[in-house]
Amino acid sequence: MKKGKAVVVFSGGQDSTTCLFWAIEKFEEVIAVSFNYNQKHILELECAKNICKKHNIEHHILDLSLLNQLAPNSLTRADIEVDKDAPKSGPPNTFVDGRNLLFLSFAAVFAKQSGVKHIITGVSQSDFSGYPDCRDAFIKSLNVTLNLAMDYEFVIHTPLMWIDKEETWKLAYDLGVLDIIKNETLTCYNGIIGDGCGDCPACKLRKRGYVEFKKKNQ
Amino acid sequence: MKKGKAVVVFSGGQDSTTCLFWAIEKFEEVIAVSFNYNQKHILELECAKNICKKHNIEHHILDLSLLNQLAPNSLTRADIEVDKDAPKSGPPNTFVDGRNLLFLSFAAVFAKQSGVKHIITGVSQSDFSGYPDCRDAFIKSLNVTLNLAMDYEFVIHTPLMWIDKEETWKLAYDLGVLDIIKNETLTCYNGIIGDGCGDCPACKLRKRGYVEFKKKNQ
Repeated sequence: MKKGKAVVVFSGGQDSTTCLFWAIEKFEEVIAVSFNYNQKHILELECAKNICKKHNIEHHILDLSLLNQLAPNSLTRADIEVDKDAPKSGPPNTFVDGRNLLFLSFAAVFAKQSGVKHIITGVSQSDFSGYPDCRDAFIKSLNVTLNLAMDYEFVIHTPLMWIDKEETWKLAYDLGVLDIIKNETLTCYNGIIGDGCGDCPACKLRKRGYVEFKKKNQ
Repeated sequence: MKKGKAVVVFSGGQDSTTCLFWAIEKFEEVIAVSFNYNQKHILELECAKNICKKHNIEHHILDLSLLNQLAPNSLTRADIEVDKDAPKSGPPNTFVDGRNLLFLSFAAVFAKQSGVKHIITGVSQSDFSGYPDCRDAFIKSLNVTLNLAMDYEFVIHTPLMWIDKEETWKLAYDLGVLDIIKNETLTCYNGIIGDGCGDCPACKLRKRGYVEFKKKNQ
């Protein structure tokens, strides 16, 4: 039985789109929230818009351009190149400091204003690629912090926390949205929709998972 | 001995200005950070600017107008009147949901970019007036969350956490800045600098503390 309302932090990528359809299965009412932080590939927001429009999902885009002022990096600044391979130590140069912290905090303020307690995010510790704000301990600590900050009972859900890309494809398949995820989402750092450039770290990770998933599910 | 650098969340009010001078006593280098969230009394930011200019303190004003879009209330919306007295239950209608959460989160992103670990905020549980994000448990939880989010060792300092308005005046006196705090800061909800309108909850609290302080320190 579906219960209550949920806000999904939604980028239009593979992970958050899978979470969006997961939420639609679980909750009576789902609102998608995206953030505009002057990402280099504004196409990401277009994907997000199109998916919500097509599937009749309420969608809000919030302006977080301040984030870009504070944490310049290769995803938001055209003059820094994306690393082709992961660095030997530390987070990759695609990291925006505090991104998930701020996305989830704004999503929570928005959710409370809308009378919503459930917040869904597609972060995954399995695939965390050196991003500290994708770890389970961070999300749980943030959940407590948000509840204390606003005296409210938020529940943050992380359906992908302990599964890898292969299992994320399997989840999309089980939810009956494999084709939507494969063809309509944008994960590629070089801004190419669907299968992407095939060459950047995000494309490699996505493709490797899909190949594994297909091997086992033919 | 003064040690390290600190960022102070600075509104130009009594509490954060006292904290600013406290920080100048404790740290080698101090940067003040203010937020523009379309507060009704933009004079607050002018006070903040003037104090920093006069005392030669590095000052940054960050744009947080998104906060106003999300949490309309009587401090930011001209069409809602400020409560004259505290409500019987729940926070007063001057509360912006998530305000300190977002101020401190942005201050932390800013601090890390500047190589700063120490963050100072003037929140006080003694005077917390029903604001959940002024409580000690919230600040400590947020400190852990920020450290996990950015894999960094922030230390949040709250010099006013356990002292009341009378003791805050005493602290200003001990720091040698009593006159600056009395004449140059803005606490009044009706936007009147120094002693204020004398009638709003913030003025009443400020005045009561000052009278008590003077009684004991003449």
